[in-house]
Amino acid sequence: MTEFFRDIPKVTYQGASSPNEFAFRHYNPDEVVMGKRMEDHLRFAVAYWHSFAWPGGDPFGGQTFDRPWFGDTMDLARLKADVAFEMFDILGAPFFCFHDADARPEGANFAESQRNLEEITDYFAAKMEGSKTRLLWGTANMFSHRRWMSGASTNPDPEVFAYAAATVKGCMDATHRLGGANYVLWGGREGYETLLNTDLGQEADHMGRFLSMVVDYKHKIGFDGAILIEPKPQEPSKHQYDYDVATVYGFLCRYGLEKEVKVNIEQGHAILAGHSFEHEIALATSLGIFGSIDMNRNDYQSGWDTDQFPNNHAEKALAFYEILRAGGYTTGGTNFDAKIRRQSLDPEDLILAHVGGMDTCARALKAAAACLEDGGLEAARKERYAGWETPQAQAMLQSDLAAISADVLARDVNPEPRSGRQERLENLWNRFV
Amino acid sequence: MTEFFRDIPKVTYQGASSPNEFAFRHYNPDEVVMGKRMEDHLRFAVAYWHSFAWPGGDPFGGQTFDRPWFGDTMDLARLKADVAFEMFDILGAPFFCFHDADARPEGANFAESQRNLEEITDYFAAKMEGSKTRLLWGTANMFSHRRWMSGASTNPDPEVFAYAAATVKGCMDATHRLGGANYVLWGGREGYETLLNTDLGQEADHMGRFLSMVVDYKHKIGFDGAILIEPKPQEPSKHQYDYDVATVYGFLCRYGLEKEVKVNIEQGHAILAGHSFEHEIALATSLGIFGSIDMNRNDYQSGWDTDQFPNNHAEKALAFYEILRAGGYTTGGTNFDAKIRRQSLDPEDLILAHVGGMDTCARALKAAAACLEDGGLEAARKERYAGWETPQAQAMLQSDLAAISADVLARDVNPEPRSGRQERLENLWNRFV
Amino acid sequence: MTEFFRDIPKVTYQGASSPNEFAFRHYNPDEVVMGKRMEDHLRFAVAYWHSFAWPGGDPFGGQTFDRPWFGDTMDLARLKADVAFEMFDILGAPFFCFHDADARPEGANFAESQRNLEEITDYFAAKMEGSKTRLLWGTANMFSHRRWMSGASTNPDPEVFAYAAATVKGCMDATHRLGGANYVLWGGREGYETLLNTDLGQEADHMGRFLSMVVDYKHKIGFDGAILIEPKPQEPSKHQYDYDVATVYGFLCRYGLEKEVKVNIEQGHAILAGHSFEHEIALATSLGIFGSIDMNRNDYQSGWDTDQFPNNHAEKALAFYEILRAGGYTTGGTNFDAKIRRQSLDPEDLILAHVGGMDTCARALKAAAACLEDGGLEAARKERYAGWETPQAQAMLQSDLAAISADVLARDVNPEPRSGRQERLENLWNRFV
Amino acid sequence: MTEFFRDIPKVTYQGASSPNEFAFRHYNPDEVVMGKRMEDHLRFAVAYWHSFAWPGGDPFGGQTFDRPWFGDTMDLARLKADVAFEMFDILGAPFFCFHDADARPEGANFAESQRNLEEITDYFAAKMEGSKTRLLWGTANMFSHRRWMSGASTNPDPEVFAYAAATVKGCMDATHRLGGANYVLWGGREGYETLLNTDLGQEADHMGRFLSMVVDYKHKIGFDGAILIEPKPQEPSKHQYDYDVATVYGFLCRYGLEKEVKVNIEQGHAILAGHSFEHEIALATSLGIFGSIDMNRNDYQSGWDTDQFPNNHAEKALAFYEILRAGGYTTGGTNFDAKIRRQSLDPEDLILAHVGGMDTCARALKAAAACLEDGGLEAARKERYAGWETPQAQAMLQSDLAAISADVLARDVNPEPRSGRQERLENLWNRFV
Ligand SMILES: [Co+2]
Ligand SMILES: [Co+2]
Ligand SMILES: [Co+2]
Ligand SMILES: [Co+2]
Ligand SMILES: [Co+2]
Ligand SMILES: [Co+2]
Ligand SMILES: [Co+2]
Ligand SMILES: [Co+2]
Repeated sequence: MTEFFRDIPKVTYQGASSPNEFAFRHYNPDEVVMGKRMEDHLRFAVAYWHSFAWPGGDPFGGQTFDRPWFGDTMDLARLKADVAFEMFDILGAPFFCFHDADARPEGANFAESQRNLEEITDYFAAKMEGSKTRLLWGTANMFSHRRWMSGASTNPDPEVFAYAAATVKGCMDATHRLGGANYVLWGGREGYETLLNTDLGQEADHMGRFLSMVVDYKHKIGFDGAILIEPKPQEPSKHQYDYDVATVYGFLCRYGLEKEVKVNIEQGHAILAGHSFEHEIALATSLGIFGSIDMNRNDYQSGWDTDQFPNNHAEKALAFYEILRAGGYTTGGTNFDAKIRRQSLDPEDLILAHVGGMDTCARALKAAAACLEDGGLEAARKERYAGWETPQAQAMLQSDLAAISADVLARDVNPEPRSGRQERLENLWNRFV
Repeated sequence: MTEFFRDIPKVTYQGASSPNEFAFRHYNPDEVVMGKRMEDHLRFAVAYWHSFAWPGGDPFGGQTFDRPWFGDTMDLARLKADVAFEMFDILGAPFFCFHDADARPEGANFAESQRNLEEITDYFAAKMEGSKTRLLWGTANMFSHRRWMSGASTNPDPEVFAYAAATVKGCMDATHRLGGANYVLWGGREGYETLLNTDLGQEADHMGRFLSMVVDYKHKIGFDGAILIEPKPQEPSKHQYDYDVATVYGFLCRYGLEKEVKVNIEQGHAILAGHSFEHEIALATSLGIFGSIDMNRNDYQSGWDTDQFPNNHAEKALAFYEILRAGGYTTGGTNFDAKIRRQSLDPEDLILAHVGGMDTCARALKAAAACLEDGGLEAARKERYAGWETPQAQAMLQSDLAAISADVLARDVNPEPRSGRQERLENLWNRFV
Repeated sequence: MTEFFRDIPKVTYQGASSPNEFAFRHYNPDEVVMGKRMEDHLRFAVAYWHSFAWPGGDPFGGQTFDRPWFGDTMDLARLKADVAFEMFDILGAPFFCFHDADARPEGANFAESQRNLEEITDYFAAKMEGSKTRLLWGTANMFSHRRWMSGASTNPDPEVFAYAAATVKGCMDATHRLGGANYVLWGGREGYETLLNTDLGQEADHMGRFLSMVVDYKHKIGFDGAILIEPKPQEPSKHQYDYDVATVYGFLCRYGLEKEVKVNIEQGHAILAGHSFEHEIALATSLGIFGSIDMNRNDYQSGWDTDQFPNNHAEKALAFYEILRAGGYTTGGTNFDAKIRRQSLDPEDLILAHVGGMDTCARALKAAAACLEDGGLEAARKERYAGWETPQAQAMLQSDLAAISADVLARDVNPEPRSGRQERLENLWNRFV
Repeated sequence: MTEFFRDIPKVTYQGASSPNEFAFRHYNPDEVVMGKRMEDHLRFAVAYWHSFAWPGGDPFGGQTFDRPWFGDTMDLARLKADVAFEMFDILGAPFFCFHDADARPEGANFAESQRNLEEITDYFAAKMEGSKTRLLWGTANMFSHRRWMSGASTNPDPEVFAYAAATVKGCMDATHRLGGANYVLWGGREGYETLLNTDLGQEADHMGRFLSMVVDYKHKIGFDGAILIEPKPQEPSKHQYDYDVATVYGFLCRYGLEKEVKVNIEQGHAILAGHSFEHEIALATSLGIFGSIDMNRNDYQSGWDTDQFPNNHAEKALAFYEILRAGGYTTGGTNFDAKIRRQSLDPEDLILAHVGGMDTCARALKAAAACLEDGGLEAARKERYAGWETPQAQAMLQSDLAAISADVLARDVNPEPRSGRQERLENLWNRFV
């Protein structure tokens, strides 16, 4: 046991009326919701990077956090892992996620970085033996080091593409070794700063080819997790190629990968792209590419990614409703790709931020489940489209413009609008939230 | 000759130093730019709706314009057409565009609306015989009448789908009869107000099927123009399915239509979707679906579609550069889907808005052509990606992660970043703008 | 009793578990919260315009609602009033709000419009005798008619200023006659479309002078309600002078009116101006100009004013917390400046939208009150600033840079940051929401 | 002469057709525009921080630039100054601007930091003796170090207020010593992350008191430059108190400082606050608080401050038109608070970015001057408001609502709208741009 979280007890469920800050008031792992344990529904994951690697900087200020594990040695990397697994234990977190760069010191060259990663992977594996916490996904940080400044797989320099390929191979190996449920690619530098120096088409082709190699390698090594792309419209780049779910879908189709790759949807990224979170989930579901979520919100008044812990259960319930309608997660989970504010200096802040996030999600899940079990909302939806269930309507769908036009003239079709009942449905929804 | 534009002369090119308001200072139709007449490059079109059918209302105010042709009779519709063709003649506009609802009075039922449309189509055809102005595209207004309030092809009521099919057939017939170069679909109500009452997947399937019928009908009647979708992210709907170029591409792939349908890109819609105009054009080009453009800007401080005439040639030059790089328009053109401000009450305002828009585009085209002919920008772009031209780089693209990783280790690859030279290229660009 | 709401019962409180759509589940007028009846806390008002005068149009579509009172006669105006007061009664609404243009037909000239207004004011007065519903505020619609297209008090034409002055006098008289608690000015056209034709300084001076006249007239007629300005950053104008609370405060100071005029804050307008709703309330409170609120939300993905009914109590609780901290309303209230969606065609939709909005606010109020009564949040806030309570700190505030600098050097001041505890406080907040 | 810019020649004016990258094509310092030398109009300043202190990091990546002066010693600080003054010389820059933290290493305590600042101030003074470059303004960086994380003058901890006071005293002394024309305060941390832990009113009072001390100190030491506040709505804070020009004006009035303090307006910040740049300048002018500008643009598709060099002269001309209308700068100037993109690694990029920015501004200035000298636009503006010049209109302004209302009735006032002529004026504008 390290000193860092000393005096912080393991967080347990104590009910909604508990005044204890270090208790769950809504997240009750063993409570059964719609036939499944809450823990199995929510599949919470802690993000290694924000919680353990981020120093608290922002574009106008430097490090605010003092952490005993900050530094670039393997010893400090192991200390960081010790503290991280202590936090997983305190929270009872079933999963974690990490990038290579969060976990190991950067080496002097690729070989050394890779050795460091392998060593820390072994260390993780050992820690996982004494822990319930599993790996939700691994990923490669191909955006922080200056080598990636002009992109990874889309870099104008083929040597960077090569370095990216080697990096992803290493991270996929580590993920596979640790039994990860998914492997994620977020392309923060796969985009551009100015069209003046960019060849959009060539970059897309390189990115498509790279993704195909990733898929091939997954099959080659027998990794049975899902490959996930995390969309984001911009930041750090002015424009990123994985703009949103719809864009990623088109990209996958273009390179024949729409059956092989799914999406990891982050709320903040949805908002930045002009969508609601629930939209992106519903769309991905309807396209057959829903994978997992990053459950961290943006501030609606900030035009950048604030990666905050969720704290409005009424809003999140709309997201969980779409997830439940889709049948819940398969390999995916609820990852807190969230950072405490840079003023939240204390170890307690780190724990409590996760407690609050987990409780917010648990309330949201329960509300969504109650609404779905009630059935009223789905019945109203079904009723609205009921006209399409007739044989005539289905026949029309298989018909053509000329025939339909003749029918409209023959029957003097003159449709009368019917209420969309939005406020009525919002009230119904609010019975459960 | 009607009274409306009386005393307004035909607008001709008089050179940049002309003090005459009713002259082109940059648009010189016969001037040759990169081997083509300027008129043939730009292919300007006047939009019938904004210029002749819009009464000047906005969400907080009603009609401001007094036009002698406002009203719902066929006589007034013909007067409107007379004035419109007079404006086309004053401007020397090579093209116009229209919706059914702009041109004909709404009938008591579909049959009467259709008869009105046919009658006005004949009237247009007769006017076109005495005019140089051709039809760039026709389209159906399936968003203004209350029957469309919940969508056209995506309406929960199959009777509305039928009405939409009959409507589009009528408009495609009219477009074909008038020799239109394209047929456009803009789905302002093909979207939703709330997910609570919406079946995203079913609506997409209906919309896909509808579009397939449109393509089939095009082939059936031998219409050799292009079918174009105009993307817009939202407004009037909270979310529209044709969000942006990338979204439309994915939709086309999903329903097997990516070789059959292209896009009509509007600057204002690009901005609302979080993109630059030139991005959308470059992307559509790289995807092989670039069709035509609506050259009307948004106000960068307004979150809705302001549909203003372009007036910053330096900005528009970036768009024309992408068009020229793509080889220019084929069936497409530069449509002013632009409305004068509702305070611009005078007939002169209508003419001068177009004069200013045409001059802005002409300056932009000439600047873009000068930069492209100079070749410096394209040489710099090519040089940036030159590393990919080696056999080794190309071989790597056909390789796999494991092999590349081995190579990175073997060669101790450690790429050194090179300057992206953005400001240098911006300066180069500004030599021509 | 008219036919319109026939079969819709009076809505009463039936508790959170009631399955009855036409019941309040949270709004219990007589329930005492922090020592005051809930009805007296919330002071709900129905907006006449959206509910009874708006035809359902948007920028891309026309009327969707069929209302038997639509039309321009005094008989229809009275029918509209009959239905409105029936709705007030069904909801038990303690207040309503109206513009002149909502309530009376536009006359052929000012005199006739004024007579119509007086006649309908008498009719309202008579209806109010048989009703519990009082007038929260009156206002003048100086944005819809084309005469206002270039502004009211800021119009370049002094005749429009005169017309505006006469209009506001008439509306203040009507408000006074009906015992209104406030008089509101919203300047949707007090702004500009382009700086090219605008004299910002002169327009501000005219607007300041106009507002002074309003204040003088208030005192002259002995109206003891508050004069309120409703800020909005834009829409319909590109830029509006009453941009947000801070801007209005500066404007009031400039013309010496900061003791005479307060603000009516609308959530949607706060959002459009880049602020949270609670920010605008807290700021107005701290400036001493908080008056009343328009409780209608925007859609976070739409860049225009959607004027939707509130439906997320967790979010609204933050607003009510600021209102309660400020001591609650004095003359102000909670006005639903909200419109049902244009697809919500049925009379039931109109009622249920208000029921949902009232319940959302009641939940929010109760949550906010519980948090305030708990005291934990305020104690944490006080503790954070406790350092300022020392005599030394207060003395420093009255000191000067040189003396403080000397002190910093002398004491070798080197402040250590302390946690801002944001997530911890968010969790505390969520114990009550 | 250091090695850094070796081989880069002094940049001179060579005319618009010059193909030389290292030449001005529009900025001709001695050319007279409206009776004043271009250099005296534009008063360009180089920002020390972005060009010499910023390592190229962004929220997702670290340092990209290799600069021989990076590090924390006084020797390196002097090397940095040497290179900076070499760049000022290459560009012929008449001014520079700096923060304490850009110029000197952070000391172990305040005293050491202050000594370092004094030493580097002496070094600057010596370099300025051999240079034409003067100081446009000095300022204090009270946002980067972790001590400022919760604000400077608005910090909940009075010790931080004290540290801020001492810091500003030191920076004002340095600015005064170097003959600075202005002193600027930008309050990036004077704002909040969450209202839950914030006392808005107390923080404003502290900030007001602090600013009063700054003004007092200015008078005490006989600094005759202007005190300027730089507004910004947010970033790094969620909400900043100096939101925009109108907000700052209200703040100044509240604390009686509106005659003592002016504003430094940055284009990027105007955009983030929902305004055009020219709006903020025109507003500040009309309020009598226009001071200086930061001439760096934002990307219209990015919701954060990109601080890019200006490159669209057509857009900037609108800003210079407002500056010229206001009579030009007095103490202010055109500061490039702009950073090269983090991929622009080469010394040449730093020079060329400034060359491009200076040329863009010079073109803009010349266009604006030509339009102002033409007089057509101002004549149209004056004509639009001409109605207010009559004695009757002026008398009305001094009248009251009742009298005006009586007059409206007596004269049966019924104003007819007149065209706002926006497009016509935009065309006129484009004759000069
Ligand atoms: Co994020
Ligand atoms: Co994420
Ligand atoms: Co548009
Ligand atoms: Co369009
Ligand atoms: Co509103
Ligand atoms: Co309102
Ligand atoms: Co900035
Ligand atoms: Co700045």
